[in-house]
Amino acid sequence: MTLPWREPLGAHPRADGATLFRAWAPRARSLALASGGDELELEHAGLGVFELVADVGAQADYEFVLTSAASGERLVLPDPCSRHQPLGLRGPSRVLDPAGFEWGDQAFRMPQRSELVLYELHVGTFTPEGSFAAAAAQLPALAALGITAVELMPVADFPGMRGWGYDGVYLSAAHRCYGGPHALAAFVDAAHRAGVAVVLDVVYNHVGASGVAALEAFGPYLTDKYTTFWGKAVNYDDAGCDAVREWVLQSAVGWVRDFHIDGLRLDAIHAIYDASPTHIVAEIAERVHAENPAALVIAESGLNDPRVIRPRGQGGWAADAQWADDFHHALRALLSGERDGYYADFGTVGDLAKAFRRPFVYDGRYSSFRQRCFGAPADDRPAEQFVVFDQNHDQVGNRALGDRLPRRLQPLAALCTLLSPFVPLLFMGEEYGEQAPFQFFADHIDADIAAATREGRRREFATFASFAEEVPDPQDRATFERSRLTRSEDPSLASLYRELLRVRRTLSGEAEVSFDEERRWLRVRRSGGEILCNFSGERLELPVEEGRRILLSTDPENHQRTDAAAVVLEPCSGALVS
Amino acid sequence: MTLPWREPLGAHPRADGATLFRAWAPRARSLALASGGDELELEHAGLGVFELVADVGAQADYEFVLTSAASGERLVLPDPCSRHQPLGLRGPSRVLDPAGFEWGDQAFRMPQRSELVLYELHVGTFTPEGSFAAAAAQLPALAALGITAVELMPVADFPGMRGWGYDGVYLSAAHRCYGGPHALAAFVDAAHRAGVAVVLDVVYNHVGASGVAALEAFGPYLTDKYTTFWGKAVNYDDAGCDAVREWVLQSAVGWVRDFHIDGLRLDAIHAIYDASPTHIVAEIAERVHAENPAALVIAESGLNDPRVIRPRGQGGWAADAQWADDFHHALRALLSGERDGYYADFGTVGDLAKAFRRPFVYDGRYSSFRQRCFGAPADDRPAEQFVVFDQNHDQVGNRALGDRLPRRLQPLAALCTLLSPFVPLLFMGEEYGEQAPFQFFADHIDADIAAATREGRRREFATFASFAEEVPDPQDRATFERSRLTRSEDPSLASLYRELLRVRRTLSGEAEVSFDEERRWLRVRRSGGEILCNFSGERLELPVEEGRRILLSTDPENHQRTDAAAVVLEPCSGALVS
Repeated sequence: MTLPWREPLGAHPRADGATLFRAWAPRARSLALASGGDELELEHAGLGVFELVADVGAQADYEFVLTSAASGERLVLPDPCSRHQPLGLRGPSRVLDPAGFEWGDQAFRMPQRSELVLYELHVGTFTPEGSFAAAAAQLPALAALGITAVELMPVADFPGMRGWGYDGVYLSAAHRCYGGPHALAAFVDAAHRAGVAVVLDVVYNHVGASGVAALEAFGPYLTDKYTTFWGKAVNYDDAGCDAVREWVLQSAVGWVRDFHIDGLRLDAIHAIYDASPTHIVAEIAERVHAENPAALVIAESGLNDPRVIRPRGQGGWAADAQWADDFHHALRALLSGERDGYYADFGTVGDLAKAFRRPFVYDGRYSSFRQRCFGAPADDRPAEQFVVFDQNHDQVGNRALGDRLPRRLQPLAALCTLLSPFVPLLFMGEEYGEQAPFQFFADHIDADIAAATREGRRREFATFASFAEEVPDPQDRATFERSRLTRSEDPSLASLYRELLRVRRTLSGEAEVSFDEERRWLRVRRSGGEILCNFSGERLELPVEEGRRILLSTDPENHQRTDAAAVVLEPCSGALVS
Repeated sequence: MTLPWREPLGAHPRADGATLFRAWAPRARSLALASGGDELELEHAGLGVFELVADVGAQADYEFVLTSAASGERLVLPDPCSRHQPLGLRGPSRVLDPAGFEWGDQAFRMPQRSELVLYELHVGTFTPEGSFAAAAAQLPALAALGITAVELMPVADFPGMRGWGYDGVYLSAAHRCYGGPHALAAFVDAAHRAGVAVVLDVVYNHVGASGVAALEAFGPYLTDKYTTFWGKAVNYDDAGCDAVREWVLQSAVGWVRDFHIDGLRLDAIHAIYDASPTHIVAEIAERVHAENPAALVIAESGLNDPRVIRPRGQGGWAADAQWADDFHHALRALLSGERDGYYADFGTVGDLAKAFRRPFVYDGRYSSFRQRCFGAPADDRPAEQFVVFDQNHDQVGNRALGDRLPRRLQPLAALCTLLSPFVPLLFMGEEYGEQAPFQFFADHIDADIAAATREGRRREFATFASFAEEVPDPQDRATFERSRLTRSEDPSLASLYRELLRVRRTLSGEAEVSFDEERRWLRVRRSGGEILCNFSGERLELPVEEGRRILLSTDPENHQRTDAAAVVLEPCSGALVS
């Protein structure tokens, strides 16, 4: 049996100038294309897929006119596979011809996994203009700093003109507020010409509430079988799931093939439920790697489960890498003394020491916060399959006030993160000590969703009584503006980051760790150097082998004893000796 | 950190005559033991586990007096780990000392997987008495027939005095209506002395609605994260799950260790949701095999996913075998022409031919019934890891009227099933042509659940208008009585089964299959013989190699042509040639 959704869905310009439209709409009695004042019926090609070849002209705007099989209602809707929404979620789709992109990136070479340094950025707040074009101008400076890949927070069409992007609806349509698809392609081209790879954050665990009805009119994109924190789960294993899987898979491959995207960061895969023999994450990895073997699939996983990155033959999903929140939590709880929420599970030097070996601190251990044994050992996976950070959009932005890691903790945090054996990720601005917060902002176009988001945010932080009144209103434009980078630089911190990224390249191999819980020091030996950390409030002397010298220090007061037998570390500081 | 639920939960007689009581009750402010008129406080040993050593005497009745942490309410409840409920679900638990079982089964040798012939029986309707003791008397006859393992439908304490057993609550308590735990041990002993293994059907995907409140008073046994067809899912991966997993794991191991059970048939594992790194099915297999490497873990899986039976190193769950419904559906739809419900997906000779190779007919293929691609190829797993049948309690009992496979279809069905390379399972009575139906019966003790069950059953078959009025009332005792075996024997069918089970032992190896869809014949070559099947309404001649002779035939009219070059098969019949 031919499965018609296996062929490309969406709008595809042909060599002869006409466009092939293909849509999966099992809930439609009939489906028509509305474009340029005309309305043309699509033909049913079986199993809910409708097709039409039409001469609508290049970059034509179009909508689908869907007559509901259930109610007979006539609905005018965007294409679920839209690659451009020039007027937003509720406007028409626009035919995109990727053959029109101009590429000058032939010389670009994808960095090795061991060379990866990720830099997470939100296009809207990264520059005053908030556009792909303005962001592109910053790329040479990032490359010079030692960043090898930028990771764009989601760009798939989401409600309104500002937002983090995690409530996107049209997976394949780069948002007009950043400049739309052509501007994204130009950004990737510029990145490649600067020698920087581009990873794109994609959300396949739910769709923004504003778009649920428009998608569900076509077919069962969502399922009642499971629920996520953000609403109904995407239908990966229930009736109708094959075309929904294709909707996701073709979108993933499309970014890589047509936009030269070098990697996908799959948002919150712990909220992707799929009991199929091949988990959708495994299938995404398979299809993306088939398109480009060098492209990366990086999972944001809150599962602490090495199966995500194991090879298929071992029952794994074969993602290239996964985020490891435990490294962050262990580091932050130790540095800051915070014990709220999930930080309750962390706070010892031993936790961070364990995280340096493999960043699943919870590898089967009982978690009081989760009230269950959590995770599994990942010793069989190489260190470079884990992405670690001391800040990211969530760990900053999902604090009540969106405040970044305090300045005094940053040097030691950066030392640990950037000299770890894992792939480090920086959050835009941390590399020079940005002081602007990164707050939670949105621009919902539905009043009820806007109100629920605002209320939800207040409720989330209600337990912190002192914050409850101050939680910024996500819908307020000022919240977005406050989150824009000021680019006011702290020169000593900027210099430290430059140094750390430079010396990082001289280190290699696994971490050998020793520590003293009582005195709160940690030593991490890697090939090429030894990292010494003082997490205490006291000055500490740590003996070093003969001939070792301080290569880099987070505190100018740190020094080697005159007999060179020990390094003296100020409180909350560290050094690299070699 | 010591995890107190890892130690045995429940009531455990000690060598000194006292009994150790251990209960997980994180929702209790305090917990007391009520026994013999006394009430003794248990001590909190951490993480919600309470303990007490008390001298209550042998086989004492006891209850837990739980003071709810949330409401302060005082509840008198059975032990969730109860091993005996002498007065039913709402009565006291009774201390069981497995050291009191007398065993004479030292000579029993577990059959090899290739020798397995399973026989599914419902203790309550298998004999006029409906007891373990009466069932035991039938074991030598089953052994003589060639049955190597009986599979008991669930015996864990369920509501009332009759039922299929799938709404059990106390996992470890063999039902009093069958004679209770001592009678079960005696049954297993008798089976072993007759050379027959005992597989027990256990339900770990939900608990009977009648027991939900009593379990949930102790802790989060169930979760809202997922739902099953039968209600809330068992909590295998949410807060508090570790002790719930132990509740299941210790029960599974207890049957094997203390009752000498040779295998567990895990009911409907497709309704077990577990996103943990180690799926509970894998953990059950691990723990059961650690207790007894020869014990079998057989999954009833509606997933068509070979991961269930793959080794752990390949990401599998390492169950020994799994049920394969597709073999049944392919066979039944072909034989009977039925196309209702899931039979819509089957009906060709090609489907059955495929099922003879590996019984996942849906191995990734698109299923119209499920409206999705379903299953995955299982060629890497040996044939003897699949359990097949042409009847079972579900395929008979979950028909509106509980009618068995029609008599005229039985011979060819049995030929296919019993001579297949898979592990065959017979449903009690089919081996001699039992004509009593096996209907859906229950004895709910809660009026609302009884009404909902009755109504649900009617609704389920409402689409078959002609049946709607006739659907038997599950609560009516007559429905149960009608389902009891009459043991009225059809001698020719009984003789065919005896012959089939005898010649089965002379066949070995994989099936090589050829077929003709139009003429509706199928040939299955195995080492030791060739099975010829005529699924048409016409007499057929099938050529055979020189020297081959009919060894067994399902129809006395089948014969070899005088020149011996072909076998003549009557409509709906088959033969084995060798």
